[in-house]
Amino acid sequence: MNDHASLTVFERACRGLPRAHTPIWVMRQAGRYLPEYRALREEVDFLTATKTPEIAARITLQPMERFPLDAAILFSDIMTPLEAMGVPVEFAPGPVIQEPVRSAVQVARIRELVPEEGMPFVLDTIRIVRSELSADRAVIGFTGAPFTLFCYLVEGGGSKEFMWARRFLREEPEAAGALLDVLGRSMARYMVAQAEAGANAVMLFDSWVGLLGPAEYRRFVLPVLKRTVAEIRASTDRPIIYFANGGATLLEAVKELEVDVYGIDWTLPLSRAGATLGSSAVLQGNLDPAALFASEEDLRASIDAVLEEAKGLAGHVFNLGHGINRHTDPDRVALLVDHVHERTAGSFA
Amino acid sequence: MNDHASLTVFERACRGLPRAHTPIWVMRQAGRYLPEYRALREEVDFLTATKTPEIAARITLQPMERFPLDAAILFSDIMTPLEAMGVPVEFAPGPVIQEPVRSAVQVARIRELVPEEGMPFVLDTIRIVRSELSADRAVIGFTGAPFTLFCYLVEGGGSKEFMWARRFLREEPEAAGALLDVLGRSMARYMVAQAEAGANAVMLFDSWVGLLGPAEYRRFVLPVLKRTVAEIRASTDRPIIYFANGGATLLEAVKELEVDVYGIDWTLPLSRAGATLGSSAVLQGNLDPAALFASEEDLRASIDAVLEEAKGLAGHVFNLGHGINRHTDPDRVALLVDHVHERTAGSFA
Repeated sequence: MNDHASLTVFERACRGLPRAHTPIWVMRQAGRYLPEYRALREEVDFLTATKTPEIAARITLQPMERFPLDAAILFSDIMTPLEAMGVPVEFAPGPVIQEPVRSAVQVARIRELVPEEGMPFVLDTIRIVRSELSADRAVIGFTGAPFTLFCYLVEGGGSKEFMWARRFLREEPEAAGALLDVLGRSMARYMVAQAEAGANAVMLFDSWVGLLGPAEYRRFVLPVLKRTVAEIRASTDRPIIYFANGGATLLEAVKELEVDVYGIDWTLPLSRAGATLGSSAVLQGNLDPAALFASEEDLRASIDAVLEEAKGLAGHVFNLGHGINRHTDPDRVALLVDHVHERTAGSFA
Repeated sequence: MNDHASLTVFERACRGLPRAHTPIWVMRQAGRYLPEYRALREEVDFLTATKTPEIAARITLQPMERFPLDAAILFSDIMTPLEAMGVPVEFAPGPVIQEPVRSAVQVARIRELVPEEGMPFVLDTIRIVRSELSADRAVIGFTGAPFTLFCYLVEGGGSKEFMWARRFLREEPEAAGALLDVLGRSMARYMVAQAEAGANAVMLFDSWVGLLGPAEYRRFVLPVLKRTVAEIRASTDRPIIYFANGGATLLEAVKELEVDVYGIDWTLPLSRAGATLGSSAVLQGNLDPAALFASEEDLRASIDAVLEEAKGLAGHVFNLGHGINRHTDPDRVALLVDHVHERTAGSFA
């Protein structure tokens, strides 16, 4: 285990330790709102970018060079592990799975992920980023959470409602459970491998879990997630972040997950999330990405409102409540990062 | 005002009066899951169907002939009033607005709706349905709520995130407010006209309001909705239903709306919604549409769970928590309607 004294500000906030300021990073910070990303992507297609460690590392580091962000997040795609589990994924431009998984026979064909064999390029990307980034800034590894990957696998791509996925849970609860299980085991291995490659923390994105009510979450998702978290814990002491996007009504259940940090979307005020998750909870979030389009004065007021909401928490990692929009002005991100640092300097010493 | 003795079971539940059973209707009950709807639509395109009173009435009544539902809901499209306000809408097949409204100049060009002039076909549809349906079954009129129509107008069509709409709120709060205002005044007139044409209740669908956090809801949406509700109230005593889809974190604010019934989506248990909305609140909802794909045994258990959640409420109108999926077996709807009626017969006398 790291000596606490050597931890980054980001890791200290994740553990609720004293810290110089509130750390901040931004979901999708390495992406299309950055002109340098768009320039690079004119030369390289998306899949090549995610699968070439030098390029993925370059993209991961682009926002770190431009802004004093406290953490880099791996540039990769949420669908990438599925290919290494035997499911071909195309991008057109959204992800498309030609043969959606909707039967027990198909579930049985899914291979458990061996990250070192199937995804060495991701682990190499993390190694490069960790070696190039200064020691006071963290690297975050990530994956889709089991239910969210389940949604894509069963639906065959993106969707507003993922009704095929929700239907499969109801029509074939045993096969659906088996699919969630293999995804859970695989993502645990994937997170451990990312931590071993140098990620200072790992994050599970449950982007679509807000489509479930609490009863279905408890029945289908929570048991798998508990095992996944336990398997990660058994092999690494790095902080685990779980982001239940749209999960306002699920938090009583989410609280049972022994993760270090709970990501909160922009629709749920942090103080209310904290009231449910308990006084020891560390939260990550949750400025509305749309706030970055407001006047500078309104943007500062919105940032201050999030900081005010976070005051009683054991720890807070500032972030947006969802991915940054591609039309965002990078200068607004600069304002955001500076404002969070200035406002919180010395507050949690 | 109707004499209470002549009210339908549906209206009695909306007012929290004694009733023979819990009334039920199903969002999108007139639609593609019904073979008779698909057969009719082979002969007539969607727009013609919505704009021809005899056909729209026929479609509205199809589920009423097949199932002992307690209420019919007008077959119409949420976008239809926008055309009568001067904004052309195409269907390809989703709604497309060629010139999205993203400036104060464009907002100033929007015409306040005069329902009798711009949408006589909708009012005629309601008159036909009301005259053909037996007096013990209700007819529900509806519209999109101001913010939801705002989303389509600014975005130019459907979207997962409606970022243009959320951005317009932030970038041009005054113009956005003016647009919401004219939508609010127009939808109030539209609801009053539907009630005068014979609708026993009117429902405002706020399908996309879950994209806002509580602060933005209170700042941009709630004041307009309060005026809209007050304007409807001033002209009719018919029950008003407001459905804040995805609005779990907004309910403290939603409670300030003096509507008769609050629609609740499937992610928020009714008892929790009731705890926030107060002991006099009447709720509508909220079976997960995916539950209709489960085994009959599991489906009955899910229905019973909703009824159990509703037990302490002042009134309950059973519904799904979202529109019925097109792949649903109509026989499952028959099971649903019968089960709700049987389980609740004599419970609220």
